[in-house]
Amino acid sequence: MESVGIVQTEYFKLDKPIELECSKSLSDIQVAYETYGKLNEKGDNAILICHALTADAHAAGYHTNEDKKPGWWDTMIGPNKAFDTNKFFVICSNVLGGCMGTTGPCSINPKTNKPYGHDFPVITVEDMVKVEYELIKHLNVKKLIAVGGSMGGMQAIEWSIRYSKYVKTVIIIAAAARLSAQGIAFNAVGRNAILSDPDFNNGDYYDKKHPESGLSIARMVGHITYLSETSMHKKFGRNFKLDKPNFDFGVDFQVESYLEHQGRIFVDRFDANSYLYITKAVDYYDPINKYGSLENAFSDTNARFLVISFDTDWLFSTKMAKEIVNALIKKNKNVSFIELSSPCGHDAFLIEYEKQTQVIKSFLKEDEKYYE
Amino acid sequence: MESVGIVQTEYFKLDKPIELECSKSLSDIQVAYETYGKLNEKGDNAILICHALTADAHAAGYHTNEDKKPGWWDTMIGPNKAFDTNKFFVICSNVLGGCMGTTGPCSINPKTNKPYGHDFPVITVEDMVKVEYELIKHLNVKKLIAVGGSMGGMQAIEWSIRYSKYVKTVIIIAAAARLSAQGIAFNAVGRNAILSDPDFNNGDYYDKKHPESGLSIARMVGHITYLSETSMHKKFGRNFKLDKPNFDFGVDFQVESYLEHQGRIFVDRFDANSYLYITKAVDYYDPINKYGSLENAFSDTNARFLVISFDTDWLFSTKMAKEIVNALIKKNKNVSFIELSSPCGHDAFLIEYEKQTQVIKSFLKEDEKYYE
Repeated sequence: MESVGIVQTEYFKLDKPIELECSKSLSDIQVAYETYGKLNEKGDNAILICHALTADAHAAGYHTNEDKKPGWWDTMIGPNKAFDTNKFFVICSNVLGGCMGTTGPCSINPKTNKPYGHDFPVITVEDMVKVEYELIKHLNVKKLIAVGGSMGGMQAIEWSIRYSKYVKTVIIIAAAARLSAQGIAFNAVGRNAILSDPDFNNGDYYDKKHPESGLSIARMVGHITYLSETSMHKKFGRNFKLDKPNFDFGVDFQVESYLEHQGRIFVDRFDANSYLYITKAVDYYDPINKYGSLENAFSDTNARFLVISFDTDWLFSTKMAKEIVNALIKKNKNVSFIELSSPCGHDAFLIEYEKQTQVIKSFLKEDEKYYE
Repeated sequence: MESVGIVQTEYFKLDKPIELECSKSLSDIQVAYETYGKLNEKGDNAILICHALTADAHAAGYHTNEDKKPGWWDTMIGPNKAFDTNKFFVICSNVLGGCMGTTGPCSINPKTNKPYGHDFPVITVEDMVKVEYELIKHLNVKKLIAVGGSMGGMQAIEWSIRYSKYVKTVIIIAAAARLSAQGIAFNAVGRNAILSDPDFNNGDYYDKKHPESGLSIARMVGHITYLSETSMHKKFGRNFKLDKPNFDFGVDFQVESYLEHQGRIFVDRFDANSYLYITKAVDYYDPINKYGSLENAFSDTNARFLVISFDTDWLFSTKMAKEIVNALIKKNKNVSFIELSSPCGHDAFLIEYEKQTQVIKSFLKEDEKYYE
């Protein structure tokens, strides 16, 4: 498959503060972003890719010729791919509160010249989208296709609600309008593990040892929810790492080895405070509560919607996807829905690129027509 | 409902060491147990209740008139109840490795006069059952009905395999012949939280602060798996503890408050080392691997089996229950199966006493006939 090739992360500084949902204000915000393809003259062929919990602006291509791995959604973004960079101007930015170039708790607080830590205000999905909107205006985009999986899907929903005139098309993948009590519970356990790590130090750990064991446990819990029971069974079954039980409390089963590995590599690339802030944003997102109903929330949008769920995704289930679809139908909006079959659970949106490509390419034909 | 009244926990000391599955040997084992009802002359009206992960020998009645709560399965055990103490001699003992009176890692190691800690050998479900067998012989029981929910169901299965001549009837509730990879993964996260708590101190913490935050996190993870998504939604929904978001990282949603409470009360009653040892025993239990197939494992049994599952139990699902049932059918064994409907998830076996009573009373009529 063709790649967008060598790309680089760019940075944009907002020239004004953002009023946050928590009623605080945040200034000096920097946004890390990448773009692939070219914006047309009308500025209406843009696709904004909203990323999930722990991803970043680097969605496609390679930063250097030596990179072993491309961006996190490279299977979906590029020439002739689902998000075809020959036709569309694709943008991906790191979310507010993140730790991959956009301002977050590990950024330097200009007032103290030290990392914010827990002086960083609690942010929401709405706040993330407000910041994305400033980037989009800065890039001279006039009309937008908003796309996202998981927490990215929540951002895409928020785009369609908050900037309804701007958004002509929305693709929501493996997402929900709001998390279930169970979803909040899993996030709460992860946060609890971080908060009770003695290295956490109230979030002020940047010049010391980081709360690695807490963050690692949080990631392990997360990973269980990203896989399906079936995919875990297929991947690991009940196999031992060393063919037989150790009769001790070290890594014994292969599935333990996998989780331990996932936890360990995560602490090298992600900030524990960002994990706290971003999971909290996901927990809080609830347009149903905010607007009285999801139908009300979608009142102003005239966008076309595509909603995709995966049959083995139990974190963001088909039932939750249908809640979005039904609200749109009740409001006579233009919505397509498909449940794709995959053993991969929630992770399917990052893995099942062929099935998604088929559906998305066909759905986006309408948009290609519009600006051609 | 009538109660068995005031009861007391008794203690039995094994007069010989037990050869463990890990190939070590353990001596000076004490077993805490309670009995309700009377053993008949033939010694064949006994029911052994095998408990789940964190329960104890106190299954029914009250220890004192001041007790606010009865034993953990009091709804099921007593005069005219599912396990009718007017007819049966009901026994419940704390498992090997536990912390409620039976020898476990918090017991005094006679060789050092200090608590075993991690000098305690890694035990298995098989070892638990071997110890239960010694108790049963000591009580002069000749024929047994083995009953258990969750990990107790695993013990009941092991009874039917290991002491097939002893066991005439088996009731397996909300259980599986072995844990799924996902189940192991959840246990692994809980153990990881305990092991990485700085107060854990390699299991040698009995004269110091206990690893409370680690054990509390382990319990939180457990509780998520004991409830169904539906029951969590019904119990807590997305309600805030204080009607609105706190915009901080304290307890915010009601579901967080519930988990935090469950974690906190658990550390007062349970030992972190026992949690490690017992979850490990659950992970290891696998008669399918041991005997080549579940059919093979069940070769020698002539017991009647009743298998009960709950439709919203995703930790020990109906699919897993059917694996047991199908193996018994293939071997032409006497087996009844029912999936009960309940919103309560895995916890249903502790809650849905009316539905279980109906099924179990009817099933046990056959046994009453036998010894009448």
